[in-house]
Amino acid sequence: MKLWDKGFSTDKKIDHFTVGNDRELDLVLAKYDVIASTSHAKMLGKVGLITEEEAKDLVKALGEIGKDIEKGNFTIENDFEDMHSKIEFILTEKLGDTGKKIHSARSRNDQVLVAMQLYLKEELSEIREQVKSLFDLLMDLAEKHQKVLLPGYTHLQIAMPSSFGLWFSAYAESLIDDLYFVQAAHKIADQNPLGSAAGYGSSFPIDRTFTTAEMGFETLKYNVVAAQMGRGKVEKAAAFGISSVAATLSKMAMDICLYMSQNFDFISFPNELTTGSSIMPHKKNPDVFELIRAKCNRIQAVPNQLTLITNNLPSGYHRDLQLVKEVIVPALQDMQACLELMTFSLKEIKVNPKILDDPKYDYLFSVDTLNELVKSGMPFRDAYKTMGKAIENGNFKPKKDIEHTHEGSLGNLCLEEIRVKMEKALGF
Amino acid sequence: MKLWDKGFSTDKKIDHFTVGNDRELDLVLAKYDVIASTSHAKMLGKVGLITEEEAKDLVKALGEIGKDIEKGNFTIENDFEDMHSKIEFILTEKLGDTGKKIHSARSRNDQVLVAMQLYLKEELSEIREQVKSLFDLLMDLAEKHQKVLLPGYTHLQIAMPSSFGLWFSAYAESLIDDLYFVQAAHKIADQNPLGSAAGYGSSFPIDRTFTTAEMGFETLKYNVVAAQMGRGKVEKAAAFGISSVAATLSKMAMDICLYMSQNFDFISFPNELTTGSSIMPHKKNPDVFELIRAKCNRIQAVPNQLTLITNNLPSGYHRDLQLVKEVIVPALQDMQACLELMTFSLKEIKVNPKILDDPKYDYLFSVDTLNELVKSGMPFRDAYKTMGKAIENGNFKPKKDIEHTHEGSLGNLCLEEIRVKMEKALGF
Amino acid sequence: MKLWDKGFSTDKKIDHFTVGNDRELDLVLAKYDVIASTSHAKMLGKVGLITEEEAKDLVKALGEIGKDIEKGNFTIENDFEDMHSKIEFILTEKLGDTGKKIHSARSRNDQVLVAMQLYLKEELSEIREQVKSLFDLLMDLAEKHQKVLLPGYTHLQIAMPSSFGLWFSAYAESLIDDLYFVQAAHKIADQNPLGSAAGYGSSFPIDRTFTTAEMGFETLKYNVVAAQMGRGKVEKAAAFGISSVAATLSKMAMDICLYMSQNFDFISFPNELTTGSSIMPHKKNPDVFELIRAKCNRIQAVPNQLTLITNNLPSGYHRDLQLVKEVIVPALQDMQACLELMTFSLKEIKVNPKILDDPKYDYLFSVDTLNELVKSGMPFRDAYKTMGKAIENGNFKPKKDIEHTHEGSLGNLCLEEIRVKMEKALGF
Amino acid sequence: MKLWDKGFSTDKKIDHFTVGNDRELDLVLAKYDVIASTSHAKMLGKVGLITEEEAKDLVKALGEIGKDIEKGNFTIENDFEDMHSKIEFILTEKLGDTGKKIHSARSRNDQVLVAMQLYLKEELSEIREQVKSLFDLLMDLAEKHQKVLLPGYTHLQIAMPSSFGLWFSAYAESLIDDLYFVQAAHKIADQNPLGSAAGYGSSFPIDRTFTTAEMGFETLKYNVVAAQMGRGKVEKAAAFGISSVAATLSKMAMDICLYMSQNFDFISFPNELTTGSSIMPHKKNPDVFELIRAKCNRIQAVPNQLTLITNNLPSGYHRDLQLVKEVIVPALQDMQACLELMTFSLKEIKVNPKILDDPKYDYLFSVDTLNELVKSGMPFRDAYKTMGKAIENGNFKPKKDIEHTHEGSLGNLCLEEIRVKMEKALGF
Repeated sequence: MKLWDKGFSTDKKIDHFTVGNDRELDLVLAKYDVIASTSHAKMLGKVGLITEEEAKDLVKALGEIGKDIEKGNFTIENDFEDMHSKIEFILTEKLGDTGKKIHSARSRNDQVLVAMQLYLKEELSEIREQVKSLFDLLMDLAEKHQKVLLPGYTHLQIAMPSSFGLWFSAYAESLIDDLYFVQAAHKIADQNPLGSAAGYGSSFPIDRTFTTAEMGFETLKYNVVAAQMGRGKVEKAAAFGISSVAATLSKMAMDICLYMSQNFDFISFPNELTTGSSIMPHKKNPDVFELIRAKCNRIQAVPNQLTLITNNLPSGYHRDLQLVKEVIVPALQDMQACLELMTFSLKEIKVNPKILDDPKYDYLFSVDTLNELVKSGMPFRDAYKTMGKAIENGNFKPKKDIEHTHEGSLGNLCLEEIRVKMEKALGF
Repeated sequence: MKLWDKGFSTDKKIDHFTVGNDRELDLVLAKYDVIASTSHAKMLGKVGLITEEEAKDLVKALGEIGKDIEKGNFTIENDFEDMHSKIEFILTEKLGDTGKKIHSARSRNDQVLVAMQLYLKEELSEIREQVKSLFDLLMDLAEKHQKVLLPGYTHLQIAMPSSFGLWFSAYAESLIDDLYFVQAAHKIADQNPLGSAAGYGSSFPIDRTFTTAEMGFETLKYNVVAAQMGRGKVEKAAAFGISSVAATLSKMAMDICLYMSQNFDFISFPNELTTGSSIMPHKKNPDVFELIRAKCNRIQAVPNQLTLITNNLPSGYHRDLQLVKEVIVPALQDMQACLELMTFSLKEIKVNPKILDDPKYDYLFSVDTLNELVKSGMPFRDAYKTMGKAIENGNFKPKKDIEHTHEGSLGNLCLEEIRVKMEKALGF
Repeated sequence: MKLWDKGFSTDKKIDHFTVGNDRELDLVLAKYDVIASTSHAKMLGKVGLITEEEAKDLVKALGEIGKDIEKGNFTIENDFEDMHSKIEFILTEKLGDTGKKIHSARSRNDQVLVAMQLYLKEELSEIREQVKSLFDLLMDLAEKHQKVLLPGYTHLQIAMPSSFGLWFSAYAESLIDDLYFVQAAHKIADQNPLGSAAGYGSSFPIDRTFTTAEMGFETLKYNVVAAQMGRGKVEKAAAFGISSVAATLSKMAMDICLYMSQNFDFISFPNELTTGSSIMPHKKNPDVFELIRAKCNRIQAVPNQLTLITNNLPSGYHRDLQLVKEVIVPALQDMQACLELMTFSLKEIKVNPKILDDPKYDYLFSVDTLNELVKSGMPFRDAYKTMGKAIENGNFKPKKDIEHTHEGSLGNLCLEEIRVKMEKALGF
Repeated sequence: MKLWDKGFSTDKKIDHFTVGNDRELDLVLAKYDVIASTSHAKMLGKVGLITEEEAKDLVKALGEIGKDIEKGNFTIENDFEDMHSKIEFILTEKLGDTGKKIHSARSRNDQVLVAMQLYLKEELSEIREQVKSLFDLLMDLAEKHQKVLLPGYTHLQIAMPSSFGLWFSAYAESLIDDLYFVQAAHKIADQNPLGSAAGYGSSFPIDRTFTTAEMGFETLKYNVVAAQMGRGKVEKAAAFGISSVAATLSKMAMDICLYMSQNFDFISFPNELTTGSSIMPHKKNPDVFELIRAKCNRIQAVPNQLTLITNNLPSGYHRDLQLVKEVIVPALQDMQACLELMTFSLKEIKVNPKILDDPKYDYLFSVDTLNELVKSGMPFRDAYKTMGKAIENGNFKPKKDIEHTHEGSLGNLCLEEIRVKMEKALGF
């Protein structure tokens, strides 16, 4: 069964090429199609395009389908092009002519749009929660390990004292920035496109304000052409959001892989979280973090994938847009898996408390000593030369009980202020 | 003069390679370095790292440099690596030892960061204004031409009636979505990184809250490691923001180029805005719109450029980050030029009021006729078959006085609601 | 069973995260693992690391596994991490200790590398054949329709006469360029990495020249570190190759979608190759070509995906590289499907022989008329002005029996020369 | 002066927007425009479109312009849109009407194309030479330091013995792969597009075979539409070529930055090649290599930039294509600078001969010891367990005089075979 069936058989090859893995992806989206269809049916009844009785029947039947989906009993057989045709088929089986009426005043275009946007809203909310959990963990770790120093690098050269307090909470504060994009993406998805039909609206006296409230959208994407243009655009907005989060996780994973190397030996994880080999007992391969890094880097490629698929297409629907869901759905799933695994694994992190005992890190403290000279009144450039000579002559003794007091420094992490900032961002 | 000069001359070749076109870009950023240096000097005086007198002298001298920059009298000669060394040189010339003291409790790293973020804030604000101007123009055009119909396409096939009202305001409403990302980028830039020094803070008792207020930042980027991590990240946030706007402009430019083709002939522009040839008087080449499209497409490549430059670098400063400004500064300038030219040119657009007189567009109206059948009670699928037969038998007559009444449709553009949404977005 | 099992159970969550869809992809690659393992076993026998008898047993058992794979009887259950562990398991079941010996002097790293490179060689050869078939078809279509004119556009404005002969054979000649990259990618894959073990070779006296000949590689990737670096790089080379082909197909699909629009009406396809609707009988949606375009655009994103996954990783194996096959395998499958469908569909193309009867195309001929003036001795710029006036005064009459004679022009397509160039490229 | 001047003044703003930095880039390309114009003039004389006398005058005048370009005396003032109009202006000044005749039978489209392709051929040849020089240096360094061991890493974990011989020559052999793409790009550029005019040829009886030979192109891009399609495509081919080289350099730069870190301390460079600070004498910042990495990473973004600018444009010229040179010209310059600096700097590399004296690297040798057990007949999996126990019980003693003998291993680098492969690649 094809919605656009004109009576002649289409070549199987083409069928396979054009349907792609839509059926598989639609199992993820079907739940949202049922939600949108239910609102649509109620609205059709409300405005009189179908009878109240018909609307009730449709809502009831859709509710049953929704339960099947929840239980995992919903399938899309090869006879059906997608979830829309399968759901319509079930409705017609259950309700006869009434089932067919669900398709009044809408088109597959806005059906896909609204299901995708409901899906994106839920996924982005979930990701926001996960980011918040990771943030909380990082802040706790920062607090717990705030006194443990580690070398700070510039150019991968040993530069200045840093601390695990700084390191953990840096990633926490950085995640707040990423949330702004997740929130922006959520806001863009939170506009009801249903009723835009094939992208040009219709002559039916539908009530889009009603469906907007029913589905819990914050507002309408009013203009029907704008609503259709949202196809590909809402997904790219989500891609920007997760791409930001992914960049932060990727960077942290890179740090972790480096810090787990025997050449650093700053942190370690229990055996369950690493892979190794019995002949190289020193080896603790950070596979989990390497895969977080790799998957997050692949997520960072998603905005560009979507741009390439959608760019330079004139306005109006093109079948190209079907491919967008094949890209965004796995990316959102990857993002959630990476956030889950990062949080799961970081809970087990062990930090090496004695890193700075190694004399190779002594020079870390040269800048602080320099600053003491400056504080005592010497111009910076002069103090710089004085210190240089002291070091050259081997007279430099590191003073390791450093005191940094300004906002955001290792002695004053401002964790509370960062927590407040996060709260604001969540309410943004 | 090199800040890191150690006494031996570095090969010229390397100098050229490492400095790149920093001097040129720094002419754009110098204004912001002066603003930040002024706040820094005041703060140093306030916390007693320099005397009040010294602070006043520095502020005055920086004010003079600021005026020179404004007048275009500021230059960075080849003797200087960048704006920072040139400004410090002038200060030392003017104030002797006091001039050198400006560099206390900061590093070139946070100097560049804070100047870049002040710059980004201003550019993004300007872009927001330009987007608003384009939005207003599009809304006015939508109102003015709301009754003029044009064909709506799906798959580039003639599909359903659309209107210039819909077309113009679709791009307007779409721009609101883009603004959410511009706003998010602005929010990310609006956090004071000054005081993070080389990325690990310092032992000086500086007052970052003071400089935050002085420079008008909304908040601090507290954690000094997080502040340093902002390098590359704030620029990428800006890139996401302008990339969103660029995608919308690019799409509209594609529509315009297509609609100006003789095969469509939907719109035209005065000769001043097109190029042509005297032997092909029919030719009105849409060079301006092609270049808007191309430049906006290049802007859409910027997030990926920045990701490639910064990705998989462990935390801490790397010289790689210097390249980021070479990418973002021209992109922001391009964005502004594209917005300016798009607004400038669209003011002159002429729409063809008689497009639908061409009989090839008659079938546009078939769906509306179908819907009338549905409204009269026929199930959608049955109405569909009935209409199909009517058309096959040549009995179809288009009824061109269509009536679309629902929210966002061509008869009910909801321009006021869209305007309100824009206002909310601007306050977001 | 895990190859790196150290005795403690790893959390299931992590297992799922790290194994990913390796098992599914490995079904595609298993055939090549068997080929490589067979060569490896023979070599081990030859150099005496195992007995000749053991080698024979291994070769026989691998032959049986190979047949199972061919028949579709090979499966990788959830107990096995990947094809390598499953195949080793079967060998051990069949041969006991001998089965375990297959793993001497190699590592999973070079096993994956060599299987991937054998796979890439085969896929790229197949793609080369498909490109050749499409080339042949385009050349035949160019010959068949060489006299049918169509408008040539610049800036999407009607510009000069073109022909279907030019249009078809332009894409054919363009495909030759793409083949150079496919060939380069093949050449890069055609270097035996087996024996590089985990990326640093081994102390076993293996004979890599022998396995190179056995597996039909053109040469060795000698340096074992270089061989390991090939991971990700050979796949990216293949991605460059198919990305080139994809760009050409995408562009042709864009032309086709445009030319099928009622606003152009240059070409058409039988109903079996389009989708439509009974109420809009004029609509022939070019879904197949839109999906070719979209899939080819997604393929063009693959090089960047691979760069993001692999970039800025220091030398040596990282688990990140495992993700590469998840990206390249579907891309190669998509490429083949697009080539197949493009060729399949283009066979049915119908060209409109009367396009230029429409008077809107009359100005197409103005340049040729201009050139006649120039040929008669008038300087170009003067002729240009003369013609401009003629057109302005309405005195221009198109002379449609144009004569273009130079190499590659519409009257002299040089099809034979292009065919010869293709032959050379195939032998390149 | 504008070539398309129709008598009315175009707004300055638009002029600035559309011309962009064409004049600056054209100073790079002007040399090639002169070469192509000279061939074109000769051809016009040969086929009788101008007199032999006129041809000679044009050739002479062009020769003078060519010399001015060589001496740096050629400028493009703001009155001229680009090099083409400036050169034509000079010719007309020198030769009157004859000067104007140079423009017969060509268009700015094929003029730009042919100049760009001549430019690309020269740049790619230069890059090939530079790659060869770097290759030679790396091979020499491999030979020189072949006995110096360093740890081989997998997952950034200490894994197995490697050597500087392996490390240097790995990058050398890897560069050969990159050359295949450079060669493919050169081959694609090496097809004469001159005579394709605006993309549809002309009615002039020009002799493209003649100009092909004159300019030293290997063959023609026969089909005029294909020739025009080359715009953007030849540049992207070059971008693929340099992107491959850049990936290799970027990776090597990453290794170098890591190995220069005090946590590795494997290599060092003289002070002239690093930057530092007198208060942190241990710091040797690898700025040159960080910038090589960053610039090479930016180069890797170029293919995608070009794809975004050119993708989904229907066939025929669009002004968008003008932007392509703004992207490719600086990228080619960057590539050459990176190759130059990498070679220049690597000449000074100092390797640490005593890396493996550090006991943390002892476990490196565990695999070799394992292999000895296997060679003595123990199945791999059993040997693996035996060794594991030995290590667990503290009974493991590293045997550091390892012997790797197979092709490409650290004891048998096959440098000669790799050199032969490079020679073949250069002749490819």
